[in-house]
Amino acid sequence: MPQPLADDSLVLIDAPLDKAGAPLQRQLHDRLKQAILAGRVTPGSRLPGSRVLSDALSISRNTVTAVYELLVAEGYVQSDRQGTRVAALSRPPLRVGRDEPAAPGVASRLSNIRTMVSRGHTTAALRPGVPALAQFPLATWRRAVDRAIQQAGPAGLGYGDPFGAPALRAAIARHLGLSRGVRCTPAQVVITEGAQEAVALCARMLTNPGDTAWIEEPGYRGAKAAMHAADLHIVPKRVDAEGLATGDADWAARPPRLIYTTPSHQYPAGAVLSVPRRLALIAKARQHGAWIIEDDYDSEFRHAGESIAAMQGLVDHAPVLYLGTFSKTMFPSLRVGFMVVPEVLLAPLSPPLKELLRGGHLHEQLALAAFIDSGEFGRHLGRMRRLYRDRQRGLRDALTRHFKVPHTLEGGHSGMHLTVRLAPRFPDTAIVEAAGRYGISPVALSGFALRPLPEDNGLVLGYGNTPVELYEPLVKRLSQLVRAAETPAHKTGP
Amino acid sequence: MPQPLADDSLVLIDAPLDKAGAPLQRQLHDRLKQAILAGRVTPGSRLPGSRVLSDALSISRNTVTAVYELLVAEGYVQSDRQGTRVAALSRPPLRVGRDEPAAPGVASRLSNIRTMVSRGHTTAALRPGVPALAQFPLATWRRAVDRAIQQAGPAGLGYGDPFGAPALRAAIARHLGLSRGVRCTPAQVVITEGAQEAVALCARMLTNPGDTAWIEEPGYRGAKAAMHAADLHIVPKRVDAEGLATGDADWAARPPRLIYTTPSHQYPAGAVLSVPRRLALIAKARQHGAWIIEDDYDSEFRHAGESIAAMQGLVDHAPVLYLGTFSKTMFPSLRVGFMVVPEVLLAPLSPPLKELLRGGHLHEQLALAAFIDSGEFGRHLGRMRRLYRDRQRGLRDALTRHFKVPHTLEGGHSGMHLTVRLAPRFPDTAIVEAAGRYGISPVALSGFALRPLPEDNGLVLGYGNTPVELYEPLVKRLSQLVRAAETPAHKTGP
Repeated sequence: MPQPLADDSLVLIDAPLDKAGAPLQRQLHDRLKQAILAGRVTPGSRLPGSRVLSDALSISRNTVTAVYELLVAEGYVQSDRQGTRVAALSRPPLRVGRDEPAAPGVASRLSNIRTMVSRGHTTAALRPGVPALAQFPLATWRRAVDRAIQQAGPAGLGYGDPFGAPALRAAIARHLGLSRGVRCTPAQVVITEGAQEAVALCARMLTNPGDTAWIEEPGYRGAKAAMHAADLHIVPKRVDAEGLATGDADWAARPPRLIYTTPSHQYPAGAVLSVPRRLALIAKARQHGAWIIEDDYDSEFRHAGESIAAMQGLVDHAPVLYLGTFSKTMFPSLRVGFMVVPEVLLAPLSPPLKELLRGGHLHEQLALAAFIDSGEFGRHLGRMRRLYRDRQRGLRDALTRHFKVPHTLEGGHSGMHLTVRLAPRFPDTAIVEAAGRYGISPVALSGFALRPLPEDNGLVLGYGNTPVELYEPLVKRLSQLVRAAETPAHKTGP
Repeated sequence: MPQPLADDSLVLIDAPLDKAGAPLQRQLHDRLKQAILAGRVTPGSRLPGSRVLSDALSISRNTVTAVYELLVAEGYVQSDRQGTRVAALSRPPLRVGRDEPAAPGVASRLSNIRTMVSRGHTTAALRPGVPALAQFPLATWRRAVDRAIQQAGPAGLGYGDPFGAPALRAAIARHLGLSRGVRCTPAQVVITEGAQEAVALCARMLTNPGDTAWIEEPGYRGAKAAMHAADLHIVPKRVDAEGLATGDADWAARPPRLIYTTPSHQYPAGAVLSVPRRLALIAKARQHGAWIIEDDYDSEFRHAGESIAAMQGLVDHAPVLYLGTFSKTMFPSLRVGFMVVPEVLLAPLSPPLKELLRGGHLHEQLALAAFIDSGEFGRHLGRMRRLYRDRQRGLRDALTRHFKVPHTLEGGHSGMHLTVRLAPRFPDTAIVEAAGRYGISPVALSGFALRPLPEDNGLVLGYGNTPVELYEPLVKRLSQLVRAAETPAHKTGP
């Protein structure tokens, strides 16, 4: 007697396989996988027994068994005493990688969006990108939010300016002009959900599907995800000690529509884009009608050397969309970023942007504007700049003394992270995985590259939210883990 | 002597026109318009005199003069005693409509995103979609936010769950199960920037460029904008008294990948999608592998008849992404919405979604969760349901007594708006424009249709934020404006 079947599984089985086509095993495997991913067979339901299915399809039972074993190995189904059941798929059964097709029923572009091995908890030691949470003046912020809710009153509950609270846009325009040499009026400032939404909007507003976009290699993963989601043809361009390295040949081959760069402090390697390269990039972009996205994510925390003004203000009418975020200068869960739209784009972009954006989060935005205007923001930045400088010095000391593995240290002109480059025989992903078990969350340098080279191997260490007194034990532990991860094939000594 | 020229305008003029091609006047007009939009001539700079330009291009001076006049009329340039200057374009000079090409350097898809004539100020009388702002318990909310900031502490400042605060997701899952028959676990709830971002995410996650999407005609404009931004082929499907009307022929022709619908209270016409149509739509969607977006934007305010449970929970494993927003139940500037991801999509969608979303707004989300869990939300909903019922009754009364134009009244089963349908001889856009001058902001029904039929003419009247005592004077004024807008061609009487 055949076993009880999944509700719809007969529908799917009855569809005849193409006996003249691809190998039957592959056809059956694809058919079942798609049925599971598309939800045509429900989690927990039983697949037909291998004999039933082989009879129904007139194929060998071995083929069915092999396919079932493959599906078990992939996690789509589970095998137990009662038969073969469709898994609940509470964890992703397939690694969504570049070369694998996305599941049926979902967008193909998803297969381009690579997922991070692990970011670790937000408060994990040495996690990059997290500012000193305990040093944030939370009580002052609470009062600012409370006052904003009170002062905005009932009218502040309605729909507001889709580009964000005018008071905040004015405060940002003033701040950027003074501190970063950005030339803009408040009308050019658009508040976004962090820099991430700003990149996504730029991609959507300024490109067509299949257009070419350049990103830094290695570079910021969030920008890549946003661009993949806009169906761009992403071309990684290597960075060196002077930052994004592109020349005439790059432009001749296939000029981009969009260029994403972090000139103040290349993320994650830390180079500062030199002035000649900035000017050349602007000139070439102008010539080819390309737009530059300048992500100035942590330039507020300059530690060494002269601050180079933003590319946006370097020349008149630079073809640059300047992006910033308050995730580092304030705190990540605030989730306020912004973009500065070039004046010439205001006319064509404003009407569609107003259809796509709806404003909102008025109370937080008003509180932030008051925080900036009262000088509280500037004082906080000053305190954090000193704190991060001390922490970086402490981390450098600890690495010198306790990191017993050959490495080179990069970055640190500004911001809250240092990059430790390692020889390929110390695979960074294995180290990061091991470190996670100790609550230590550096990020693997190789994960920032689309096509990693052997040299893209190392650890990005965030010191923003990790106090100095922990560096010695943390670095000692990391050093041990790096040595333990050394691959035997490359071992050079006994 | 030639006048001083815009920096780059010679570059643009030197490009020879194609004398064998399109009419020279059109060529020159396009050339100059594009140069202005692309920023190749800067705002405030002077265009060459008509004689200089006609000589340089060997075309008649009349052609140049005509083109300049056209550009002035379109707002691209301004003419004064000193010559013809490029306008600052602080206001959009062109209506970005379906049939016009987008400006060069911006995405083609932008030309599909139609812009609203005017929404009016958020507190304008009779503006649809705005809840009773003055009735919101602002003091209670202030305390909830303050407590959330305090309780979350420094750890709450970091990066959180990209899908939103777990406490809020759990509160929403409980609330939806009880009030709307939605079947979901907290893990399926993803917090979004209003329903708008949820539609955008669905489009991006579940379709490829060029895929077909069905939308309701007339229907919610925000959904159209989000789908246009995802390069979908949008097919409007008419709604009737039973809601979205589609049959076998629609499915046979070109089955969609995505269907956007507002079954509880069709926006803006107000029909309730009948149960047979719901079941048929679900069955067909399942058969063709399509996904249904069920936007349940105002079902909390049910005024008449039995509440029909959400499509999402109508059958097992319905191919439905359920969307909701707190813009109406709480207040618009909160900007919190959510989508319920079908269980089968969690595995393929979670990894890329986690790369595209970053969480944030934790304090507001925790305050909202506490507001729901404490019962404050339910009490507020109850008060507002009664208030909106009274306001709708008041508006109906006022229309019956004082709206002296033939019309039919539609909708009102739930929510905060009524739709007044008018004969085509009373053009709704003209009425809306005139009403705006009196601070009255109904929305034109025709603006909700992609391909408006003569019957798609009328006014969507929001009563959410307008007190009953104003209805008599407002409706009297509207009635006058409607009669004043009657087009002479159709006038039937003396």
